[in-house]
Amino acid sequence: MSRGCTCRPGLPIAPARPIPEGAATQQESAGLTQSVVPILLSGGSGTRLWPVSRRSFPKQFAALTGDHSLFQASALRLSGPRYGAPLVLTGADFRFIVTEQLAGVGIVPGAVLIEPAPRNTAPAVLAAALHLAAADPDVMMLVAPSDHVVPDAEAFGRAVDRGIAPARAGRIVTFGIHPTRPETGYGWLELGGESGAAPDDPAPLRRFVEKPDAAAAEAMLADGRFLWNAGIFLFTARTMIEAFERHAPDFIAPVRASLQAARPDLGFLRLDPEAWDSLPDLSIDYAVMEKAGNLSVVRFADHWSDLGGWDAIWREAQLDAPAWRGVVADARSTAIDCDDVLLRSDDENLQVVGIGLRDTMVVATGDAVLVADMNRAQDVRQAVTALKARGIRQAERFLRDHRPWGWFETLVMGERFQVKRITVHPGAALSLQSHVHRSEHWIVVSGTARVTVDGKVTLVTENQSIYVPLGAVHRMENPGKVPMVLIEVQTGVYLGEDDIVRYEDVYARS
Amino acid sequence: MSRGCTCRPGLPIAPARPIPEGAATQQESAGLTQSVVPILLSGGSGTRLWPVSRRSFPKQFAALTGDHSLFQASALRLSGPRYGAPLVLTGADFRFIVTEQLAGVGIVPGAVLIEPAPRNTAPAVLAAALHLAAADPDVMMLVAPSDHVVPDAEAFGRAVDRGIAPARAGRIVTFGIHPTRPETGYGWLELGGESGAAPDDPAPLRRFVEKPDAAAAEAMLADGRFLWNAGIFLFTARTMIEAFERHAPDFIAPVRASLQAARPDLGFLRLDPEAWDSLPDLSIDYAVMEKAGNLSVVRFADHWSDLGGWDAIWREAQLDAPAWRGVVADARSTAIDCDDVLLRSDDENLQVVGIGLRDTMVVATGDAVLVADMNRAQDVRQAVTALKARGIRQAERFLRDHRPWGWFETLVMGERFQVKRITVHPGAALSLQSHVHRSEHWIVVSGTARVTVDGKVTLVTENQSIYVPLGAVHRMENPGKVPMVLIEVQTGVYLGEDDIVRYEDVYARS
Repeated sequence: MSRGCTCRPGLPIAPARPIPEGAATQQESAGLTQSVVPILLSGGSGTRLWPVSRRSFPKQFAALTGDHSLFQASALRLSGPRYGAPLVLTGADFRFIVTEQLAGVGIVPGAVLIEPAPRNTAPAVLAAALHLAAADPDVMMLVAPSDHVVPDAEAFGRAVDRGIAPARAGRIVTFGIHPTRPETGYGWLELGGESGAAPDDPAPLRRFVEKPDAAAAEAMLADGRFLWNAGIFLFTARTMIEAFERHAPDFIAPVRASLQAARPDLGFLRLDPEAWDSLPDLSIDYAVMEKAGNLSVVRFADHWSDLGGWDAIWREAQLDAPAWRGVVADARSTAIDCDDVLLRSDDENLQVVGIGLRDTMVVATGDAVLVADMNRAQDVRQAVTALKARGIRQAERFLRDHRPWGWFETLVMGERFQVKRITVHPGAALSLQSHVHRSEHWIVVSGTARVTVDGKVTLVTENQSIYVPLGAVHRMENPGKVPMVLIEVQTGVYLGEDDIVRYEDVYARS
Repeated sequence: MSRGCTCRPGLPIAPARPIPEGAATQQESAGLTQSVVPILLSGGSGTRLWPVSRRSFPKQFAALTGDHSLFQASALRLSGPRYGAPLVLTGADFRFIVTEQLAGVGIVPGAVLIEPAPRNTAPAVLAAALHLAAADPDVMMLVAPSDHVVPDAEAFGRAVDRGIAPARAGRIVTFGIHPTRPETGYGWLELGGESGAAPDDPAPLRRFVEKPDAAAAEAMLADGRFLWNAGIFLFTARTMIEAFERHAPDFIAPVRASLQAARPDLGFLRLDPEAWDSLPDLSIDYAVMEKAGNLSVVRFADHWSDLGGWDAIWREAQLDAPAWRGVVADARSTAIDCDDVLLRSDDENLQVVGIGLRDTMVVATGDAVLVADMNRAQDVRQAVTALKARGIRQAERFLRDHRPWGWFETLVMGERFQVKRITVHPGAALSLQSHVHRSEHWIVVSGTARVTVDGKVTLVTENQSIYVPLGAVHRMENPGKVPMVLIEVQTGVYLGEDDIVRYEDVYARS
């Protein structure tokens, strides 16, 4: 029996501080021309890492391989003297997760642009370029997906440095990873130019290669002129806008219109939905990169992974800590006579046991268990589609529901009652609301709540309770400096989230 | 993708009614000599069916394959005109589960004998024989494990009828199952006597065969003189006592002493632990059957299974409803491109997904997931041993804790707080108690509670709450006719179950 503790529980978020309003704008205007502005794209849904990654809380925000989420790790990797404050593009559902997670690692974003709807990477990159070009068209931008693993940030930084000169000269610089196996799950890059050039020199790109079959991958690995396409790009705002003008001109007007009508909201910049919605769903690779003739490749020989599936997580874990018989099992998992397995429990109350398994991944959360052949990692998205088609909540949502003010989760749903745990951030407030069908008992178990019921304000502290009768207009706030946790017991004939009448809401949801 | 709904959720218990005190004794004395008294042995722990079966709530009490638990199904199968009221032998931990489950199917036991400690089947069978012989030494006893599946109860009853005459004549009758496959997981019986005898005639037993290897099993299946040993025996009390006197005389005195000093308790008969504890842990097969020369075999050609592991559950499910590609999946499980798999979720909030699996069993409960090669079903007990060695609760206990008055389960355990759901049977009461380290908030969500706090009695009904301060002497009762459900929120620095001072307890636990 082997037990390594190489994977970590999911979903923890480093302690959050709300970012002060206005901070973003100050930072944004400070000396961006001197440094590279990271563009963090974090709108993806990551269904291949279900059940830990779901549409409501995708993989980039989960702590899949370490203490930080992939998004936090990306932001940290692209911070320091080399970089300016990052520009983040995300969806409305994730805006508070983004700010919480950045605050958790002490990073203040230059701006957080909210995409009204997911439209893949082309509109997002153009929006970032147009937004930054307004202040400085020659600003250097580094577009990076926020779900990559690059353990050596300094080595990556030196690769970025090597890309600066060609980017300033109007090239679009892409980063090519030195391949270590005949990977069929990635796109590849074929280098042009002289074969005798120094490996650190940027090389012209001959062509993008789509995900190959096994034979083609073997051939490219042996050839030496092929690298993995990491999907990381360095360029000036001017270069990218010109590339769109030449190769995808139809994007310019709607993205510009959406930016011009953008609405500031609690430190976020909400792109206007009207023009945005008309944009096609297209990746930057298809829209621009594959058509542009001015691409250069900077080689990156250090470790990189895109965590595209549970097989990648399993492989990464073994790089961190070699696993006996290929068993990667966390502290809540037990492997008996298993070979080449990933056993993972993301719920502290859930034990996982594997007996006699080969090439198998088991990933368990509190509400879903995935068991798959290791070679079928890419088919996990099929499972998500199947569950979604049957209307099963677990396909896209967690029990824990993140809100601007904190989060809640249902502990038990009974006939005519429901018990929730609610956590409210310091200083945060729920909307002033009432319910038609339910009454609520609140018991504070940590911190202090300021509770308003039909105009009467009460401070409710640990081990105190308060009753909110059916129909009463009420609000819950956390006036303190520590998170407030309360247990809510609802009773009533209908307990859906949509039985809510909002009177006032600081988060503009009423 | 295939979805059959052939397995059922675990642990539901048919609605319970407490048995009236004294009912057992009345029934016991009524006409036992006319019929066969079923002896239901239900003390086993069933670790091979972990995680659904655990020491605290073993497989015989779980609804593994139908609406009833195996114990309920056994009791029902051995009820009707042919049989007397059953005599149940069980452990102290299971006594209330036994009475609840019998009440749930409308069966009043002749007696429930509580074994002070598990000592395997030999002492249990002797205790039953001595207990019944006191009223009538010629009483006909049918010993049956309570974890068998025998769909045709009437066919089995006719087999019992065929055993009556030899049993009256002083034979020990065992039941041999017509084998349908070369099973290596069962013991076998070799028949003696003339090969030309009618198949319905009881035949003398030549010998017991231990669990064979595959080749021996194949040979026995082909031979025709071999049957599976079901471990079901029919005999008179007198015959069994004489067999013990001859083959295992050391058992007699301690079992008799334990019976004589037995203490009636709420309708149960608690065997005295002093003599009992000195008994060896031995099966009736080893102690008596394999030595006795007076065994006859009654053939049973209908379907029978002992549900000895998850592979048996998988096999049984396909007999009920043929499964496409061998996929047995319940309503909460999804199989994508799987062959010969069992996918089972016993928690209504837990979805199970299998992708590309072959010969694999996945069994998930709310706090444990088993994934094993189908051919390793017997090694599940190894997993339980491994978890137990690491002190992991799931090895032996469920989150749901059964008590004489009902059950409770922890919904969430936080720092300095805990939330429980508590269900109290109609008419039941918790002990009068106090806690040194915690206070409790109770919110009734179903039914009505009578709550005593420091001498003050309050009726608390649905959607009402009450507070029990730290140190207060309190009691909770359900004075109503329907189960009472409440949510308890505990706060305090120490929340262990052992922080309890009991002042009065109807269940004699103070």
